[in-house]
Amino acid sequence: MRQHLNTITITAREQGLHEISDEIEAWLDTSGIATGLLTIFCKHTSASLLIQENAAPAAKRDVEDYFARIAPESATDYSHNDEGLDDMPAHLRTALTQTSLSVPVRHGRMTLGTWQGIYLFEHRRRPQRRTLMLHLIGD
Amino acid sequence: MRQHLNTITITAREQGLHEISDEIEAWLDTSGIATGLLTIFCKHTSASLLIQENAAPAAKRDVEDYFARIAPESATDYSHNDEGLDDMPAHLRTALTQTSLSVPVRHGRMTLGTWQGIYLFEHRRRPQRRTLMLHLIGD
Amino acid sequence: MRQHLNTITITAREQGLHEISDEIEAWLDTSGIATGLLTIFCKHTSASLLIQENAAPAAKRDVEDYFARIAPESATDYSHNDEGLDDMPAHLRTALTQTSLSVPVRHGRMTLGTWQGIYLFEHRRRPQRRTLMLHLIGD
Repeated sequence: MRQHLNTITITAREQGLHEISDEIEAWLDTSGIATGLLTIFCKHTSASLLIQENAAPAAKRDVEDYFARIAPESATDYSHNDEGLDDMPAHLRTALTQTSLSVPVRHGRMTLGTWQGIYLFEHRRRPQRRTLMLHLIGD
Repeated sequence: MRQHLNTITITAREQGLHEISDEIEAWLDTSGIATGLLTIFCKHTSASLLIQENAAPAAKRDVEDYFARIAPESATDYSHNDEGLDDMPAHLRTALTQTSLSVPVRHGRMTLGTWQGIYLFEHRRRPQRRTLMLHLIGD
Repeated sequence: MRQHLNTITITAREQGLHEISDEIEAWLDTSGIATGLLTIFCKHTSASLLIQENAAPAAKRDVEDYFARIAPESATDYSHNDEGLDDMPAHLRTALTQTSLSVPVRHGRMTLGTWQGIYLFEHRRRPQRRTLMLHLIGD
């Protein structure tokens, strides 16, 4: 049994879902591990991780719009607004989605379903550089 | 240290919570691993995983009703409705719950609390066959 | 590769977010593992886990208020109210957040971001003793 730990940086040019499946698969390819468990960890509280359908662009927009509706920007709902109106909703949307995701690996690839993609969900309005940890254990 | 990886299929005959704790424990029994970490991964974007109370049937229905309220079917809220009115809410309910769950294992069993059960949360209206990956690492 | 499994108990004196990062780091220190994967598992369905900002107290209160708004106490919304009005919202707030969290470990510490803290999110009104499992695998 071996393990690998890596840090990757994702540039999120705008608010919303950014697919990162390819970046993760590229790193898996270098690891030499065929069977194991991959864990992705997002080191932020205003961006998160999500596994969603990667086929229909309309579905992606509907997900973004939905989270904007249930955790909206507001000058009155929150007491913590000094970092901008998009800051507190960013924490809430992070709380409602994932900070860590674990995906089994087989034949050197993530065992995602046909329509599943892994996304960084950027919740701030301005472009951000986001840091993810990738941990892989297996044989 | 050893690991096991398995694929199981669950038939969800209707929308809602389907307890799968027994199917998972049955597989654990065959693994010969006493102490370790079990990860359950759902290969779908319109069904998800949830750990919930497995004692009160009313609590189960309240959970189902709640997610139907906060991510409702709607002909106007979503632009992605071509796969049916229950499709986009299914993606949203998946986003709000879990696609992967990790549970420590001790004495060959999941270390669930007294009232915890593991559920497949089926979000589509029609019966579905769902595929889960089970990864176990330990001694 | 080695693994450690531990049970810790947290006393939640009131409803809301209780930071537990220090308790977890203290246990990590005793493990002798420098690189690996830590999994935290909450053995309850009316308390959960959350990674959130640990700098601004106002942000913490906003998170608590938000979950009280989207999964409110109600004498009419739920059929399962016999354990108190705060019981069913507790299950829902648990469903919307995390029961398990996995965090990579490097140099013997969790690879949390600068502003991330790990919280037990107590959803019941009365004080509770909560049990968490900690699983660590690595070298």
